[in-house]
Amino acid sequence: MCEASAYIIDDGRPELIMEAVDSVEPEDGGYKLVNIFGEQKFIKGTIYSLSLVDHKIFLKKSA
Amino acid sequence: MCEASAYIIDDGRPELIMEAVDSVEPEDGGYKLVNIFGEQKFIKGTIYSLSLVDHKIFLKKSA
Repeated sequence: MCEASAYIIDDGRPELIMEAVDSVEPEDGGYKLVNIFGEQKFIKGTIYSLSLVDHKIFLKKSA
Repeated sequence: MCEASAYIIDDGRPELIMEAVDSVEPEDGGYKLVNIFGEQKFIKGTIYSLSLVDHKIFLKKSA
């Protein structure tokens, strides 16, 4: 399986917000994260960068 | 390895632009894609959505 951990970048260092993320889909001016366990989280922000071999997704909060 | 295929969404159906993508990093108002072979590609657009279990990244061109 190739899920990744999602981090929020918010000025300081990245903060882990969800593990085992499968899908990241735009919704209501932000993004809905869904992990392989079916858990969901909504982030008001955008996808900032990816490092897939490291299993990392970085999101950035909207101003 | 958990690389993915990158697709551009541009009105119609997704168009494959790069396989085995490792990192996607913001650069000069767009994104630089780098795959596991070290090949690079620049896309003037943003990361639109992710489906990691399917190994797919979707980007959207800037208007």
